[in-house]
Amino acid sequence: MTDLANGLRQALDGRWAGVRQQCRDDIDPLVFAPPREELSLEDYRARVADQVAALARTPYPGHGFAAGQGGDGDYGACVTAFEMLGHADLSLLVKAGVHWGLFGGAVANLGTGRHHTARLPDIISGALPGCFAMTETGHGSDVQSLRTTATHDPDTDELVVHTPDAGARKDYIGGAARDGRLAAVFAQLVSRGEHHGVHCVLVPIRDEDGRSLPGVTIGDCGPKAGLRGVDNGHLTFDHVRVPRAALLDRYGGLDAAGAYSSPIENPTRRFFTMLGTLVRGRVSVAGGAGAATRTALAIAVTYAGQRRQFRAPGSDEEVTILDYRAHQRRLLLPLAASYALAFAQNSLVELMHEVQSAGDGASEHDQRALEARAAGIKAVATAHATATIQACREACGGAGYMAASRLPALKADTDVFTTFEGDNTVLLQLVAKGLLTDYRDEFGSLDTLGVVRFAARQFAGAVVERTAARGLVQRLVDAAPGRDREDAVLDRGWQLALVEDRERHVLDTLAQRLRRGARASGDEGGETFAVFNDAQDHVLEAARAHVDRVVLEDFVAAVDRCTDPLAKGVLEQVCDLHALSLVEAHRGWYLEHDRITPARSKQVTAAVGELCAALRPHAQDLVDGFGIPTEWLGAQMPEPLTAP
Amino acid sequence: MTDLANGLRQALDGRWAGVRQQCRDDIDPLVFAPPREELSLEDYRARVADQVAALARTPYPGHGFAAGQGGDGDYGACVTAFEMLGHADLSLLVKAGVHWGLFGGAVANLGTGRHHTARLPDIISGALPGCFAMTETGHGSDVQSLRTTATHDPDTDELVVHTPDAGARKDYIGGAARDGRLAAVFAQLVSRGEHHGVHCVLVPIRDEDGRSLPGVTIGDCGPKAGLRGVDNGHLTFDHVRVPRAALLDRYGGLDAAGAYSSPIENPTRRFFTMLGTLVRGRVSVAGGAGAATRTALAIAVTYAGQRRQFRAPGSDEEVTILDYRAHQRRLLLPLAASYALAFAQNSLVELMHEVQSAGDGASEHDQRALEARAAGIKAVATAHATATIQACREACGGAGYMAASRLPALKADTDVFTTFEGDNTVLLQLVAKGLLTDYRDEFGSLDTLGVVRFAARQFAGAVVERTAARGLVQRLVDAAPGRDREDAVLDRGWQLALVEDRERHVLDTLAQRLRRGARASGDEGGETFAVFNDAQDHVLEAARAHVDRVVLEDFVAAVDRCTDPLAKGVLEQVCDLHALSLVEAHRGWYLEHDRITPARSKQVTAAVGELCAALRPHAQDLVDGFGIPTEWLGAQMPEPLTAP
Repeated sequence: MTDLANGLRQALDGRWAGVRQQCRDDIDPLVFAPPREELSLEDYRARVADQVAALARTPYPGHGFAAGQGGDGDYGACVTAFEMLGHADLSLLVKAGVHWGLFGGAVANLGTGRHHTARLPDIISGALPGCFAMTETGHGSDVQSLRTTATHDPDTDELVVHTPDAGARKDYIGGAARDGRLAAVFAQLVSRGEHHGVHCVLVPIRDEDGRSLPGVTIGDCGPKAGLRGVDNGHLTFDHVRVPRAALLDRYGGLDAAGAYSSPIENPTRRFFTMLGTLVRGRVSVAGGAGAATRTALAIAVTYAGQRRQFRAPGSDEEVTILDYRAHQRRLLLPLAASYALAFAQNSLVELMHEVQSAGDGASEHDQRALEARAAGIKAVATAHATATIQACREACGGAGYMAASRLPALKADTDVFTTFEGDNTVLLQLVAKGLLTDYRDEFGSLDTLGVVRFAARQFAGAVVERTAARGLVQRLVDAAPGRDREDAVLDRGWQLALVEDRERHVLDTLAQRLRRGARASGDEGGETFAVFNDAQDHVLEAARAHVDRVVLEDFVAAVDRCTDPLAKGVLEQVCDLHALSLVEAHRGWYLEHDRITPARSKQVTAAVGELCAALRPHAQDLVDGFGIPTEWLGAQMPEPLTAP
Repeated sequence: MTDLANGLRQALDGRWAGVRQQCRDDIDPLVFAPPREELSLEDYRARVADQVAALARTPYPGHGFAAGQGGDGDYGACVTAFEMLGHADLSLLVKAGVHWGLFGGAVANLGTGRHHTARLPDIISGALPGCFAMTETGHGSDVQSLRTTATHDPDTDELVVHTPDAGARKDYIGGAARDGRLAAVFAQLVSRGEHHGVHCVLVPIRDEDGRSLPGVTIGDCGPKAGLRGVDNGHLTFDHVRVPRAALLDRYGGLDAAGAYSSPIENPTRRFFTMLGTLVRGRVSVAGGAGAATRTALAIAVTYAGQRRQFRAPGSDEEVTILDYRAHQRRLLLPLAASYALAFAQNSLVELMHEVQSAGDGASEHDQRALEARAAGIKAVATAHATATIQACREACGGAGYMAASRLPALKADTDVFTTFEGDNTVLLQLVAKGLLTDYRDEFGSLDTLGVVRFAARQFAGAVVERTAARGLVQRLVDAAPGRDREDAVLDRGWQLALVEDRERHVLDTLAQRLRRGARASGDEGGETFAVFNDAQDHVLEAARAHVDRVVLEDFVAAVDRCTDPLAKGVLEQVCDLHALSLVEAHRGWYLEHDRITPARSKQVTAAVGELCAALRPHAQDLVDGFGIPTEWLGAQMPEPLTAP
């Protein structure tokens, strides 16, 4: 590894650099890599189950649980190690994430002491494989409308878990088809004839021999686009009885007579608080998406630097395909965005670590802000993964279509990341909702109608709440040259001001639009929906503009922190490329709103091309800087990937 | 099927409507559909080989060969039937395309009478499975640099076919791994110590029992992203001897003493003429991509019209996801583009049919223009397929990730369409080259250096060579209202003028740029490459702008031809949506070049949203209009797709 690559790696490794290095040393690619040959669905699932068992013998799963619960409460280390697993087989990543993160996380965060004592040791050790049974066939994004019921029977003091119709079947549940023994089932809690909203109940689904338990019908989702090692299945419950103690009752419980009590009065707010405790899943998916994307870029950029095609006129030598300008744009723009998102992910993990370490001491505002940040980064990072891995596949031509290149599996396995842990379109609307309501306490209790009314009545103009880098960014923005200065495009303050200006303006005009619509429609619900729906593209644009700004600020702060002059110089250029590619991508908006002149717009496009050319000599170092051990890459390309 | 859907189908069916209907009646989905369950690679390949055998018993393969060669020379019918096969298993589409289209096409177009007599009957009947062995591990896009040699041995009057090094191995060859018996091998022809450039030689690779022949080493490419039923493999030749008569010698042959002669003097022009006869492959891939895209849209749009999620405020009913504006943009914009491309494909097939039916009577200009048109439509249609099928998968959420939805296979199978039959980036450069040189005779003989010099010296300004719709388009453009008229965005002439203006301006400025660059760099080759390379994005943009204009004109002409008033009215709106989405996508360019005002740009975006809403009620009819028999769709979605 060159000095430059090493410096870049150190910058990317961030606060949990030690965990990353430990993973590089510990994780044996022979054990955790994707299979070399095609396996049957059953063989693949068995292989991944074995990998999970091997992972259970490492210290990593324990990082995700509090000290009093059998772990060490190093949540940042937990998510960082999970991210590193994104360089291994992604079926393992997802299977491990379902078991320890979603299932274990539900028990830890929604349960209370007795659940922790009874279940967490076996969950952490992997002895009790679990499922996270939230999504139903009929309802995925709209979790509040789930139809499975858990009804209290006062005669036996049991909960009766039931699937009332085909749409209420639990669907796509990881671990259900083959290995899961206990399921965290989300259901409408009913007692004394009253509905208390969605709660989570632990329901055994298989005995120790793997046979499904009475009343539980288990189906297999069968083949999927990817993630062949994950045994997704259906669960249907026919009046399955569990003791009342199976209810995870941190946010709402029953007494023996079926009387309901909860520390949170408002049911909508209670619901969002419960979901909010599961935020780590989204942070983890964003991290895994980032790792998979960097793997794909490392394969495609290395190949592009070695593969030659067509002789240059007047030369006997063929040109490496990475020397073609179009190929540079194809790979180096997403490479720059991947650096940006890696730094933003590090920053998100730190934020999550602080909020979750504070436990009940965290403010509601901070918790809501964390949820919005996680939703936004998850949506942007997974969309980036899908687009970038696709571009990498195409950039490798026929070689990239062969399974041996690893690119097909990277693409197919990550493809569902834009859908699970919250569909990206739904998540971006959550981000916009947070911006419109400034993450107030009311945030959790507002439905669409409430958001529109809140925005209409109380929104006083966008407040750009800066990231941790706020002081630095403000200094840069204040020092930005005027818009007429020739050299402005390479000024960091000018770039930041443009990106921030877009966020503010899009949000302000969105609020105005909702206000006008709300006035015109009065308090009639149907009309208010139409107002919100007609503005949906605007809502999504506001969320994306916000995430763009946050990610860029994190990048700027990371460059500022970098102490290695060699790496810092190159990172400055990568940051220029990312910032200007954002401006270029939205130049229609900037021109429409008279933020840049046509001449400046053309200058931005020219600068993007020049930065690609300037970074071309560093391309291999930039992907080596991802710090992916060579033996993990495992891509068999026509011209083999050589050690850096 | 509603009257509207029926009217739309008739418009889309075009000149070979009879063949389409025949396919709908004849092609048994039980025989030709993708498998319902996961098969091993070997079982899948065996299944597709059986499907090819079944297809051989239909009249369709015969359409692709001239009357004197055992066919009926109905080339348009051939390509149309192939397109219909794009609704079936895409492994079958590709396997059939390799055998009859590429391999059979090479024998028919590059061979002479003795080859036709000896080989075509068995090729048409499917008795002699073949391979098209062009691509090598080291050279794919740059076919002129292939390294396999076919050297004449005057002592035995044989050709010695040889793979000199690992990079010269034939790679990704469909049919090589399992079924192929005879290969059309592209090799550098050498005789008397002289190189005559790339020619094609028929080389037996397996005996009747499937054993590889002496000197031929066959490898298996193994698992791929998709197309699991196609047996792609490697071929390596160790001094394999074939009689001189195995050389397909229409464009260049040897006498017994090894003296070379060709009807085409210039070797580069000869090479491009040979490749040009294979244009039907690109036309076919574009057609197959279109059919697969329409299948995906039919699945996703039907699902979106049935799937409900989230209650509208003030309503007890949940909203169908297709009623959300963001979902409409996601699906209806590609739906409009798919209509546009379907009409453009019909027009391309007619052009191809006319040129190929004329045989040697076709002018070189027409042949070159056909090649450029095929290259452009192939590049745009396959990129559209990749993006659209991905969007369809995401729009179906978790259900779209399940193999049962068919979307994963549609995505994975078509993914390589952007790469094979010419990498899209390379093809678009071919399109630009044609525009810069106006498809002159010299076209075929110009390398990059030649194109730059030609453009620099002779390019006199872009000539927008109109499609068959030229009279109609000119009238519409002439009648377009001024740019200040409020209602201009929905005026067809205004839309056409904008799209045409972009093509002309991008091309003119590209020529100026090359001219300036060529002057500055003089005649030094390396510098000229740098000039062309620095302009590569500009080159690609010129090609895309050209294809956009051609496709839009074909759409306008098709709407004009439509005699069903109901269908015509809806097609006008779909055409508006497509035209305005083009303007919207490039609004950065239009604003930069002062072609539209900021206010007009915002009006275009608003109009796109309004057109989506206006077309929402017709969405199901629009996909039913694709004329895909319900039993062909075969998607098992949570809420089953019902018959229209």
